[in-house]
Amino acid sequence: MIIQLHKNIKAEDLQIILNTLETHKYSVTKVKTQFENYLICIGKQDVDIRIIGHLNGVKDIHRVSDNYKLVSSKWKTENTKVDLGDDVVIGNGYHGLMAGPCSIESEEQVSKIVGHLIKNDIKIMRGGVYKPRSSPYAFRGLGIEGLKMMHEQCKPHNIKIITEVMQASQIKEMMGYVDIFQVGARNSQNYNLLDALGEIDKPVMIKRGISGTIDELLNSAEYIFSKGNEKLLLCERGIRTFETMYRNTFDINAIQILKDKSHLPVIADPSHGIGIREYVPKLALASLVAGADGIIYEVHDKPEEALSDGQQTLNFIESETLAKNIQRIKALL
Amino acid sequence: MIIQLHKNIKAEDLQIILNTLETHKYSVTKVKTQFENYLICIGKQDVDIRIIGHLNGVKDIHRVSDNYKLVSSKWKTENTKVDLGDDVVIGNGYHGLMAGPCSIESEEQVSKIVGHLIKNDIKIMRGGVYKPRSSPYAFRGLGIEGLKMMHEQCKPHNIKIITEVMQASQIKEMMGYVDIFQVGARNSQNYNLLDALGEIDKPVMIKRGISGTIDELLNSAEYIFSKGNEKLLLCERGIRTFETMYRNTFDINAIQILKDKSHLPVIADPSHGIGIREYVPKLALASLVAGADGIIYEVHDKPEEALSDGQQTLNFIESETLAKNIQRIKALL
Amino acid sequence: MIIQLHKNIKAEDLQIILNTLETHKYSVTKVKTQFENYLICIGKQDVDIRIIGHLNGVKDIHRVSDNYKLVSSKWKTENTKVDLGDDVVIGNGYHGLMAGPCSIESEEQVSKIVGHLIKNDIKIMRGGVYKPRSSPYAFRGLGIEGLKMMHEQCKPHNIKIITEVMQASQIKEMMGYVDIFQVGARNSQNYNLLDALGEIDKPVMIKRGISGTIDELLNSAEYIFSKGNEKLLLCERGIRTFETMYRNTFDINAIQILKDKSHLPVIADPSHGIGIREYVPKLALASLVAGADGIIYEVHDKPEEALSDGQQTLNFIESETLAKNIQRIKALL
Amino acid sequence: MIIQLHKNIKAEDLQIILNTLETHKYSVTKVKTQFENYLICIGKQDVDIRIIGHLNGVKDIHRVSDNYKLVSSKWKTENTKVDLGDDVVIGNGYHGLMAGPCSIESEEQVSKIVGHLIKNDIKIMRGGVYKPRSSPYAFRGLGIEGLKMMHEQCKPHNIKIITEVMQASQIKEMMGYVDIFQVGARNSQNYNLLDALGEIDKPVMIKRGISGTIDELLNSAEYIFSKGNEKLLLCERGIRTFETMYRNTFDINAIQILKDKSHLPVIADPSHGIGIREYVPKLALASLVAGADGIIYEVHDKPEEALSDGQQTLNFIESETLAKNIQRIKALL
Repeated sequence: MIIQLHKNIKAEDLQIILNTLETHKYSVTKVKTQFENYLICIGKQDVDIRIIGHLNGVKDIHRVSDNYKLVSSKWKTENTKVDLGDDVVIGNGYHGLMAGPCSIESEEQVSKIVGHLIKNDIKIMRGGVYKPRSSPYAFRGLGIEGLKMMHEQCKPHNIKIITEVMQASQIKEMMGYVDIFQVGARNSQNYNLLDALGEIDKPVMIKRGISGTIDELLNSAEYIFSKGNEKLLLCERGIRTFETMYRNTFDINAIQILKDKSHLPVIADPSHGIGIREYVPKLALASLVAGADGIIYEVHDKPEEALSDGQQTLNFIESETLAKNIQRIKALL
Repeated sequence: MIIQLHKNIKAEDLQIILNTLETHKYSVTKVKTQFENYLICIGKQDVDIRIIGHLNGVKDIHRVSDNYKLVSSKWKTENTKVDLGDDVVIGNGYHGLMAGPCSIESEEQVSKIVGHLIKNDIKIMRGGVYKPRSSPYAFRGLGIEGLKMMHEQCKPHNIKIITEVMQASQIKEMMGYVDIFQVGARNSQNYNLLDALGEIDKPVMIKRGISGTIDELLNSAEYIFSKGNEKLLLCERGIRTFETMYRNTFDINAIQILKDKSHLPVIADPSHGIGIREYVPKLALASLVAGADGIIYEVHDKPEEALSDGQQTLNFIESETLAKNIQRIKALL
Repeated sequence: MIIQLHKNIKAEDLQIILNTLETHKYSVTKVKTQFENYLICIGKQDVDIRIIGHLNGVKDIHRVSDNYKLVSSKWKTENTKVDLGDDVVIGNGYHGLMAGPCSIESEEQVSKIVGHLIKNDIKIMRGGVYKPRSSPYAFRGLGIEGLKMMHEQCKPHNIKIITEVMQASQIKEMMGYVDIFQVGARNSQNYNLLDALGEIDKPVMIKRGISGTIDELLNSAEYIFSKGNEKLLLCERGIRTFETMYRNTFDINAIQILKDKSHLPVIADPSHGIGIREYVPKLALASLVAGADGIIYEVHDKPEEALSDGQQTLNFIESETLAKNIQRIKALL
Repeated sequence: MIIQLHKNIKAEDLQIILNTLETHKYSVTKVKTQFENYLICIGKQDVDIRIIGHLNGVKDIHRVSDNYKLVSSKWKTENTKVDLGDDVVIGNGYHGLMAGPCSIESEEQVSKIVGHLIKNDIKIMRGGVYKPRSSPYAFRGLGIEGLKMMHEQCKPHNIKIITEVMQASQIKEMMGYVDIFQVGARNSQNYNLLDALGEIDKPVMIKRGISGTIDELLNSAEYIFSKGNEKLLLCERGIRTFETMYRNTFDINAIQILKDKSHLPVIADPSHGIGIREYVPKLALASLVAGADGIIYEVHDKPEEALSDGQQTLNFIESETLAKNIQRIKALL
């Protein structure tokens, strides 16, 4: 059960509500986000919600039978949109397009890619600076310096930045340079990181775990929301199966189901979703048709020389064609 | 290595070719289909193909490094199209739309559905009469009587019929009433059935196994082709994974990869691919965008009363909307 | 619900039972096996079983809530044992050891292996003559001639034979030479084959499908039992997962669960279960400790020259050591 | 390639080695652990190792073709043993037995369980104080207070403690109370945590990821080792598959393969590996037979009242029987 409270609720009114909930044996979590003030109530009893609904300070009250609550679509009449400023909005009808290299490599590389994004009217740049790599001996990214490099060139053109954060201790230094924090597939259930991202006022995109269930992804989002951050995006990036012909099995089914179960925007990552460059564009378009609120893909001026993920990265010509086709499909939808 | 022979090759010329292949330690399979005359040669040596290419009776010769040969795209310059007669063609640019109930249940049911197909200009009817069911106590289909019922009503309207065959001994009695034999997911590696279907001149659609790899699907098609039947369709219908939110994980990646690896048409089955009625239409459209040559889906006049698969079956209104949207997407592509 | 009938039940008594069941809206399947006479009743109503229990001709009556009925452990007080004659018994405390080559290749090969089995007191020989192979160009077995070859050498020593049957039409010719029919993983849901095996009086071992669930395996067994054949063995042989370090993921959990859910004996196949020769022996022993009623493994006089599966086949020395260790573990248990 | 250096290698000798490696285009990582001094060299060239082997300061040199190096069995002649003090040793012939509750709940609970461990001569207690839970509203453990509670009662009896650490920032405060840090399945690829655990001198047990490959597990161990900590244990705890009859699919194959590929001890976790109480003991014994160097399982005085994982937790009687049977199997092996 979700109780929405009035923002300026009086302490004594809150106490009455809490006492009533206690009487009915609810376990209560207080949640105060950028926008609202909630009580999340977990209980076994089936209580008449009017008992609480009429109390002072209660704005609204909703039953939610899912095991996740705040991210559920069951209580929100309208889908969430995440506003990044400068008219860049994702969700509830607004499509978001994010493109960029797997890893930030150099100023020159960033400059070329920013030029490509401007030319194709792509408003959000992706680019990894903290890279989770299976082997400790692989290139692990340029770190905060890479992020600053990215920011310096994106900022003048109002291009927004999405990049992965790997642990809570990195958030503070990254804060000033990032528009969307990305939680990677391997950290999808790193609950300390999720808790920490719940305490900031900055959008977060959570990738589905390597073999994460849809339910787990929604619960990971619930972690962040319940700590106070409503600005959330979900990302389908393929799951691990027995098939070895491609990198991951893109779960196109998940797009419709996530959008049905939750009010949060859903982004598709076709680059990781199939992992083979020539198949990325059609997969991006199919994802849009399936209902994705946005696409994130990898592009590089010279994919064959990229320090990571070159095999799934588009070159500028392929990216330009894709960006145009995305516009065509959006027009049709 | 595939050697295409002239159809009227002389016995002595063939013998010379076979002797040459034996000298180079090839294991040879003779394949005579509706259209061509081939020798499939498996060997470890790397032979200069000109040694064979110049022999009398050889029409053409191709190296194919895949473990499947005849279904590989590596030797055919043009994609296969399967012609069902009456201008119903699938593949190489021709889209095929197949719809109908999970199971044939009664004359009345067939009549209503045929009416729906005619109204929406759908040229191929699906409908199960031999039903593979997990439990021996479940409804197992009307059998050959069901097929005759279907045929009687489809024939006058030139509606083509696709239905599942479960074992070799059923082929003969079904032959006169079927336009496409379907091999179901559970029989995808029933090699005796595949062998038998290779010996007839009638199109066959092979569904991917429940956890069949792309490679296994292509090898199953190779079974049929290598016994003499080139009229083949492949079908992606979802695979088994850990996710439990839906019936199967529709592997949209497989569509592009199958079309790249093979010259055969690829059909998408969104009904089984997600298993939940409300999500079928978007999945069908996304499959088309990903490159599918056709769609097969389940429709019933009263899905909630269907004897099987009702939860994934569209009603007539949903089906009509889908059929129209498929036309819109086809126009765009 | 399972009703056990007296074998010599009078027609009029049976009719009364059937009428009563119809009144309570049960769907009834009559099952007559080698040993018993059953009615399997599927219904939604919750009927007091005493209503039927007191009728003439009823021997016993059992509620079974599983979706499979006859193979369920819920109605049988004692585990099934399958008696192959000559004191070779499997199940309910009797361990069965089966060994032999992947494929029967020649008289000489059979002779050597039979010698090895005699020496090590192994009573059941495995050996494939109909081989399901992913590629149509691979060695597909010696067929019925291979089976006769095997039989000729096993018979004089009372060594029992288990071999795979691939389609219903093979059963008749194989019947005289086989002691246990094996249903392979790829045919685990080939329901026509299962039906046909239900109509004979000969033990059948059903392998779990490549990605078959435990529930599906039990339902496949139910197919055979419900057609009249109670002499059944289940076989765990590994499932398909994302891991690529070995051939299959041996599901040791399945052994305990199958033995708990069903009264049928459970055989472990460590050769396919891991697919790498050096790891087979310990996996065999671990399976025994987990509760397997028997082990089936591959052995060959020269594994490196075997026509199939050589990489997972033990040589005679390894096999001898394993056979001895199996005795030690059995003594401990 | 791994170069073992003399501990007191002179700076100028090291420089010569590094220069030589640079000439041959190796990328070099310096690793200094509790015990040794290594250079890990990644390169594409195939260099004659004698060129480096004869240089001053080089103790030994080994080619390792695996993508992980230090944890590979290819360079170590003897398996690793981890010594916890007080004669508690795991690996290379020493079996380790760890038991305790899923979560530490209260002093009284700890006291009862410690009593049980003493009685059964179990030297290592498990017990979670930081609990990764899918839902943010579930019980998340007592935190550092729980750990102190555990330590206070274990210390006097020389019972060692293993507990999960969830993020780098927790290490310092936990350090004094822990004998083995556990990295949980969800954090198996949390590379910042692994890096941090590489910088301390305390044993670490890494659980395989929920759908982690064997290769990924070994690379995660390589992260820790390459930062300086050699005291490592690997843990198989079941993987995620399509089967839903139990919690996880215990991958018994992984035990043999991990022991073959790596010199590190391998611990089996049958409690999570099957997730159902009654099946845990046999799975534990089977794991030992398959070669596990130790077992970790869950035990509680009242499993049915446990705050977490009660369904897979043994009671004292079951645990006592298991501990005795483990001794019997160990004697046999």
